[in-house]
Amino acid sequence: MAKSIKDLLLEEMQDIYHAEQQLTQALPKMAQAATSPQLRQAFETHLQETQNQIQRLNQAFQAIGEQPKGKTCEAMQGLVSEAEELLQEGLPGELQDAGLIVAAQKVEHYEIAGYGSLVALAQACNLTDAARLFNETLSEEKATDEKLTQLACNEINPKATQAAA
Amino acid sequence: MAKSIKDLLLEEMQDIYHAEQQLTQALPKMAQAATSPQLRQAFETHLQETQNQIQRLNQAFQAIGEQPKGKTCEAMQGLVSEAEELLQEGLPGELQDAGLIVAAQKVEHYEIAGYGSLVALAQACNLTDAARLFNETLSEEKATDEKLTQLACNEINPKATQAAA
Repeated sequence: MAKSIKDLLLEEMQDIYHAEQQLTQALPKMAQAATSPQLRQAFETHLQETQNQIQRLNQAFQAIGEQPKGKTCEAMQGLVSEAEELLQEGLPGELQDAGLIVAAQKVEHYEIAGYGSLVALAQACNLTDAARLFNETLSEEKATDEKLTQLACNEINPKATQAAA
Repeated sequence: MAKSIKDLLLEEMQDIYHAEQQLTQALPKMAQAATSPQLRQAFETHLQETQNQIQRLNQAFQAIGEQPKGKTCEAMQGLVSEAEELLQEGLPGELQDAGLIVAAQKVEHYEIAGYGSLVALAQACNLTDAARLFNETLSEEKATDEKLTQLACNEINPKATQAAA
């Protein structure tokens, strides 16, 4: 139970820690399923970023004097489950790519909201080292989301309009 | 099963339709639980917006020649469930407000990702009326998210730092 704003911060860190760990399981499947080489590359790059982001979370736990620990993140479970359902539909590759981008951008926005909140909570607690670490990850998540938007609009969606099952 | 990009668009519309409907159930509880009058007002305003957004989705279904229908949105179920768990913790009001803003911004970002994808998919399908409707809602969601960020940083989080159970 959160009893102070620092406890609330800690709970949110545990939530996103678990979310990132789920993502390291999901991203390799999404990369493998991608038809577009650019999309596969984007997922592989984001897997590496996610692993760095977990290390950054470990540093943030250390910076606030706590042990790294995860707490079940139901929202990310729902997001990953929706992506897995998509992969089971057996869609034509170009169409599945378009669906994968939608799933991936929902994940990115979950993380943008999560890290944005962590920055605000850490700043309110004057935990400047942790706030800086969260802000670094927040910038990466926003850049990944923007990259996926460009990829969807310039390549994946136009190709998907040509696809039919 | 999505067989064309328009089917993919339709599935995403059904997902967000169900998500918005869940939100019309959750927002009144969040408004009632809010201690800060500004936060309560923000939730009440967003409830009205959400009802308009559902009407806009109805118009978009009509514009593409489909019946409005929802499809279980597991991610929003997870998000709402996390907010409900927060309310069951029985935190001091100022601290609960800070947690409510985190939950609400995760919801906003789910919607930003959802409507952002809908705009891109509708544009790829040359469904300009639907794209315009999704874009109107997208702008509202972004504005709500920004309003919540300002409220968290300027009022709610500073007050929460003073709270203790």
